[in-house]
Amino acid sequence: MAHISVAEKYAGISSLLAHYTDSAKPLMLLAETLLRGESTLTQGERELIASYVSTRNECVYCASSHGAAAKHSPGMNAEIVSAVQCDYQNAEISDKLKTLLTIAGQVQISGKAVTPDAVANARAAGATDREIHDAVLIAAAFCMYNRYVDGLGTWEPGNPEVYDQMGIVLAEKGYIRER
Amino acid sequence: MAHISVAEKYAGISSLLAHYTDSAKPLMLLAETLLRGESTLTQGERELIASYVSTRNECVYCASSHGAAAKHSPGMNAEIVSAVQCDYQNAEISDKLKTLLTIAGQVQISGKAVTPDAVANARAAGATDREIHDAVLIAAAFCMYNRYVDGLGTWEPGNPEVYDQMGIVLAEKGYIRER
Repeated sequence: MAHISVAEKYAGISSLLAHYTDSAKPLMLLAETLLRGESTLTQGERELIASYVSTRNECVYCASSHGAAAKHSPGMNAEIVSAVQCDYQNAEISDKLKTLLTIAGQVQISGKAVTPDAVANARAAGATDREIHDAVLIAAAFCMYNRYVDGLGTWEPGNPEVYDQMGIVLAEKGYIRER
Repeated sequence: MAHISVAEKYAGISSLLAHYTDSAKPLMLLAETLLRGESTLTQGERELIASYVSTRNECVYCASSHGAAAKHSPGMNAEIVSAVQCDYQNAEISDKLKTLLTIAGQVQISGKAVTPDAVANARAAGATDREIHDAVLIAAAFCMYNRYVDGLGTWEPGNPEVYDQMGIVLAEKGYIRER
């Protein structure tokens, strides 16, 4: 049971967004902008960063739902998602994305943990300022979403099929809903 | 110098918001909603939570600017802000706010670090579900803002007077600006 009263029929962040509608608006607009707005990173690459950071924060709900959203994004598949969550250096992704995941992992620890070397490596692998910015902000944002979801003790589905269905909807329709 | 190219005339998050205007919109709307929107926590109490979490994340820019915003909010003063940053259990604040700061400190570590005991203590001190929700989300949000500001290596003013002026503007006018 969650630490506060929410509709238990909804899991994870959905239970909070349904009840706290004033904060839901900027939270979902931010997710839509970062994960699906204009960017030279693909939607799948951005969902992979979100899922990777959520995995490091041990937030099962976010890691699973954004992993599923990545899987259902163009050019991605379940093997890539699972490889990125476990050992991204050996995943079948671009060297540029590997360097951005390194930065995202540093952001997960602390903003101050990001090293000039990691940024230089990303640049050497072809990452632009905008891509470095987006990787840092996506990683930072999921340090928020993960804490919101777990800090209030929301429940998470155990059935992978539930996340898969969620991933299809997120990948196709995104984060803005009428609530 | 920041890790990416931004207008160095602006410090901290302002340098990022000025350059990356698409993400600036939801980021500032979220700050305005959480720190100044409808709530039974005062503006000053919410700014104190923001400043406390930023202090724990060692984000000088956010700790100082939101500390100054707290100081210039009704009913607050510099002594309270500095006491909360250093040793909130002995600060001249309500028992309810102390229990919410305990929860905020747990959120700063991890969403999973929030204990049922801490939530029960907050409730026993009179905190409502909404106030517990707001404390968790403000703490989580500053885990994002702090990582955004420091993860991209933005610079911070050293002069306390600069933050004081910033605090006056934030306390009076808030977070939504034409950019």
